[in-house]
Amino acid sequence: MSEPVVDQPSGEVAEGVVDLLGAVAYGELSAFERMAEDARTAPTLSGRAALSQMAAAEIGHYGLLERYLADRGHSVEDAMRPFVSGFDGFHTSTAPRSWLESLVKAYVGDGLAADFYREVAEWLDAPTRELVLAVMADTGHSAFAEREVRGACEADPKLKDRLTLWGRRLLGEALTQAQYVVAERDGLAELIVRGSGDLAGIAALFRRLQQSHTRRMTALGLG
Amino acid sequence: MSEPVVDQPSGEVAEGVVDLLGAVAYGELSAFERMAEDARTAPTLSGRAALSQMAAAEIGHYGLLERYLADRGHSVEDAMRPFVSGFDGFHTSTAPRSWLESLVKAYVGDGLAADFYREVAEWLDAPTRELVLAVMADTGHSAFAEREVRGACEADPKLKDRLTLWGRRLLGEALTQAQYVVAERDGLAELIVRGSGDLAGIAALFRRLQQSHTRRMTALGLG
Repeated sequence: MSEPVVDQPSGEVAEGVVDLLGAVAYGELSAFERMAEDARTAPTLSGRAALSQMAAAEIGHYGLLERYLADRGHSVEDAMRPFVSGFDGFHTSTAPRSWLESLVKAYVGDGLAADFYREVAEWLDAPTRELVLAVMADTGHSAFAEREVRGACEADPKLKDRLTLWGRRLLGEALTQAQYVVAERDGLAELIVRGSGDLAGIAALFRRLQQSHTRRMTALGLG
Repeated sequence: MSEPVVDQPSGEVAEGVVDLLGAVAYGELSAFERMAEDARTAPTLSGRAALSQMAAAEIGHYGLLERYLADRGHSVEDAMRPFVSGFDGFHTSTAPRSWLESLVKAYVGDGLAADFYREVAEWLDAPTRELVLAVMADTGHSAFAEREVRGACEADPKLKDRLTLWGRRLLGEALTQAQYVVAERDGLAELIVRGSGDLAGIAALFRRLQQSHTRRMTALGLG
């Protein structure tokens, strides 16, 4: 493990880190809203409750990010603003058309975001790293999605094929939007380039994200 | 304080208590959904986040209810079902037409429900009482609603009048729906009649709910 990329005097936060925390915060807020909306399409009351609980877990740690930034003189609102259109674009282009697509999206999207931010966290100073890891801590709601999707696909191979394609599309859209976002934010781009070392390091990071995605698809009974 | 109304052998739950916990659970689930939806009408990103956090707090303890019922052989889904139409009716008849109406509804509805269930909790056996009190614990998100509504009303007396009427309507609709629900569930009705002692006791309970409502309206700068 190399030295932290970001090593600011106490109480200050580098621009790239403000960006990063703003992206995490808006990612949580927008995922919360989409999951909460999707929960209403659940075929059962317990499904509605399960996806609502996954949604609630998303926003559960938002207050930590808000306080961390506020203590260092930054508003979470300003930090989030540059990321609104990118995340909203992702959600618009991946609006689920069924309850099972909603579950796959919640599970896959959550997992991808957590993998990415956990990698980036390793390049940060200790307090920021701990914050990001706390915010991304697994909330243990994913077993429900695995059970539901697996069960439905075992009974219907065509559904399995369709959801496999859906999972692949989610990965593609997420990586595309992430690249747009990073390209527009110099501080964030620099943080990632310096953290991963070089272009080969970035390629390796993306490869690891894809491998974890494949493992997650398997856990859902897809792929 | 009188003896607990419900004193079942360990592991069993009286019908009225299953009803009560089902009502609490569906009340949380439906409040979550409405607040999450209303959050999207917020004029600012931080308002969106604040109401989303209030929504998430609603469902935060849902898992406790689910587990408590499951451990005693009841499904939370079955327990909730009798209450779906009553709560949905309340939400349909009180759909907020503005961001500030949403905030007043979240604040007033939350407070009323917590007051009512805390009173009922006093009549239950210790483990169920502790469960209900834990689920109703104040989540500390209400300061945001007070600040927003107060600020807006200070600048606009007409708005204050409108929101005062809105708060009164919310109380009326909530009490009406609650009475319909209780009238249809024998076990729950018996729990409340026995707990409050007699009709005078029920009247006193309703008076206390109205007094707390008035205090909450004052805290919002209304009334």
